[in-house]
Amino acid sequence: MSARVLIVDDLFPNVKLLETKLALEYFDTLVAMNGPDAIAICEKGLCDIVLLDVMMPGMDGFEVCRHLKNNPLTAHLPVVMVTALDQPSDRLKGLDAGADDFLTKPVDDTALFTRVRSLVRLKAVTDELRSRALASREFGIGDPLALAAAENGLDARILLVEDRRGAAERMAGALGQNHTVQVEADPQRAMQAAAENAYDCILVSLDLEGFDGLRLCSQLRSLDRTRNVPLIMLAEPHDRGRIVRGLDFGVHDYLMRPVDRNELLARVRTQTRRKRFSEVLRGAVQASMQLAVMDGLTGLHNRRYLDNHLGLLFGEASLRQTPLAALLLDIDRFKGINDTYGHEAGDEVLRTFAERIRLHTRPADIVARYGGEEMVIVLPEAGLVEARAIAERIRARIESAPFEIHRTARSVPVTVSIGVAVREPQDTGPADMLKRADLALYRAKHAGRNRVESQAA
Amino acid sequence: MSARVLIVDDLFPNVKLLETKLALEYFDTLVAMNGPDAIAICEKGLCDIVLLDVMMPGMDGFEVCRHLKNNPLTAHLPVVMVTALDQPSDRLKGLDAGADDFLTKPVDDTALFTRVRSLVRLKAVTDELRSRALASREFGIGDPLALAAAENGLDARILLVEDRRGAAERMAGALGQNHTVQVEADPQRAMQAAAENAYDCILVSLDLEGFDGLRLCSQLRSLDRTRNVPLIMLAEPHDRGRIVRGLDFGVHDYLMRPVDRNELLARVRTQTRRKRFSEVLRGAVQASMQLAVMDGLTGLHNRRYLDNHLGLLFGEASLRQTPLAALLLDIDRFKGINDTYGHEAGDEVLRTFAERIRLHTRPADIVARYGGEEMVIVLPEAGLVEARAIAERIRARIESAPFEIHRTARSVPVTVSIGVAVREPQDTGPADMLKRADLALYRAKHAGRNRVESQAA
Repeated sequence: MSARVLIVDDLFPNVKLLETKLALEYFDTLVAMNGPDAIAICEKGLCDIVLLDVMMPGMDGFEVCRHLKNNPLTAHLPVVMVTALDQPSDRLKGLDAGADDFLTKPVDDTALFTRVRSLVRLKAVTDELRSRALASREFGIGDPLALAAAENGLDARILLVEDRRGAAERMAGALGQNHTVQVEADPQRAMQAAAENAYDCILVSLDLEGFDGLRLCSQLRSLDRTRNVPLIMLAEPHDRGRIVRGLDFGVHDYLMRPVDRNELLARVRTQTRRKRFSEVLRGAVQASMQLAVMDGLTGLHNRRYLDNHLGLLFGEASLRQTPLAALLLDIDRFKGINDTYGHEAGDEVLRTFAERIRLHTRPADIVARYGGEEMVIVLPEAGLVEARAIAERIRARIESAPFEIHRTARSVPVTVSIGVAVREPQDTGPADMLKRADLALYRAKHAGRNRVESQAA
Repeated sequence: MSARVLIVDDLFPNVKLLETKLALEYFDTLVAMNGPDAIAICEKGLCDIVLLDVMMPGMDGFEVCRHLKNNPLTAHLPVVMVTALDQPSDRLKGLDAGADDFLTKPVDDTALFTRVRSLVRLKAVTDELRSRALASREFGIGDPLALAAAENGLDARILLVEDRRGAAERMAGALGQNHTVQVEADPQRAMQAAAENAYDCILVSLDLEGFDGLRLCSQLRSLDRTRNVPLIMLAEPHDRGRIVRGLDFGVHDYLMRPVDRNELLARVRTQTRRKRFSEVLRGAVQASMQLAVMDGLTGLHNRRYLDNHLGLLFGEASLRQTPLAALLLDIDRFKGINDTYGHEAGDEVLRTFAERIRLHTRPADIVARYGGEEMVIVLPEAGLVEARAIAERIRARIESAPFEIHRTARSVPVTVSIGVAVREPQDTGPADMLKRADLALYRAKHAGRNRVESQAA
């Protein structure tokens, strides 16, 4: 994957060297000679990945990294820190600031390109999701990016695939302080556990007895259910070749043995954050689509959903010759409640009404606000007798206790009139059935309200 | 990227050979020995890419490919056909059936892995989009997959970057019959044209005079605006190395010189279909999110949108000390229309009402259905005098002509009462302003309806 790489370094020769290397590999490069310039470029969305020098006058690399990772606009950008000395304390400081990886000067070409490509590919997959989430923000449905960037990466569920007992115990012990860890020595059982549980991160030893750990990684990356779980390889220094291979097919990160305790904690946390970042975005897009078929006031389905789904249910019932019933509910004298106590009181009554009717319906039923104070309940598999019984239970439940209006600290009696109809063989569509329910509702209103009436036999 | 590769071949030795090769590269493999089995595996979503033998008894590879590409459930799966003889007629038949590429037996390893990896990576990026679109279908918001799969790939806008005049003319001539082609010899100008126009496909010569065409490809893949446009490289047979490089960083396809006219047409069409497939899905997800803030009946914004955005507009107006006005509109005696002519007539009146008020508002105004027959219009930058004038124009417009009710072939007179309020310095939030608009509306109703009243001065 080609990408725009931002090189951040205050020394011109360093910049020039990286620029030349990257250009030969067909990457596009941008340059910032200090922290604030780098941040500005990132905020404008002009780059896909950041190579960040640690030692810079003014704002140092750690500070720039922390800034990028805490800003919802830039938190998704992978950051690779470039350090002059490979000090464990530096690595840790960077990982704590949220960096995705480290490279030591002089930069090794294979390490550089492998890492940049792997991070850019992983980013490409979430970019689409991110731009949908951005759109949902524009439509005024919350700010998923801010929420996603605030994720701390703690309390993760971790699977550790390791058959060396001592190493497993040490790592599980370290991770166990902030996370829940399950250790699995057998690769088959590990695969099964991964498919059945929602892990936040999986660590896989590449040196399992008689089994290529990389194959387990590839299976985890292939399976739909585990594809999005971050993978970290545990490798020996002589395993360079397999590390490159793994990163190339989508493994997210690796730890070199002997595993440094703090680096372990930092990398697991970074991967967990990254995964949850995507999940929050995915959830936000999903939620905003779900809103499209929900009534904002009552949380019931809306008329759009009813129109779409009633047609399907009706067609299915006609085909399979199974019963289908519809209840049309209208709150009695609702206008009076609005006029006397105000709109907000009316809204509260609608919400309480929705809660009460939901108690008497099953998950397979459609419960929708049809408009104003009118609701529709569609009951698959229900005949006239059953539908009447449900309607009567709802009517009684509404009447049973007055509705509280919190703002005015008083409560008002509410009743409902209900018209009941069922699908008839001669019906050409759901409108015929709803029409009969409407007529029955009309009769219920005329006969004094607070009644259930059903279609003429 | 690791992936599940489906090998479809009726001969066991062929299957075994491909399985071994792919397993060594850490791909997961599945096998189908005939067409119907292959289709079943694809429909169940068990694989990411299909390697499809052409010559099979019963259903041949072309038929299987056509089947997969015309089914909304499987149209997104990349299909690579594997042929015993490299006959141009076979290639063409496969491309016409929608295949993404061809490999000739004995299969060259580099070609195989490069192609599979490239196609799987491109698929990973659209998978996220596809699963969001699938969700929108579950919520009952249309069927974007069916729509996307029906795309024919014709009438494309094509940019051809080629400085050999003869070759450019030949290709532009062939493509021009079904598409619109722009030829550009200069890479800089090509880059500019690509950023400014929405092309469906860009063809880039790798042999431009004094310029590496692959660099142009990499720039096109890096830039936000051009990232999703399919790229096809035009290459000489000795250019294998650069082709592999290009596919590796995200170029979609290539054509070998001398370019076969029919293959050119087929590959451009396949890429155009693929791009539009993603666009339809993206549009569907976008649209279903937009529905979340729209009132289904009138097409106006809904209360959810109003609540979110009024807060923002109000905060901004308070900060910048600019005026802000709100109109609260309530259709007079709407209950009577519903009771006399039925709900459908009432709905039609609401729709016509919405259309008429939209004519008197600007794009920056919020026009929302507040609930039932009540609407809210928020006017940024409008003071009391201006807001009253707009309200009066709307009132007059509603009264000016009776509302047609198509089902009953009659028309009814409709009037509206409007309450007007503006933001006051002492307001703590938009609710204060709306409250005053509500009181003004109440006075308009009491004074005989069909009137505009505004907050007390």
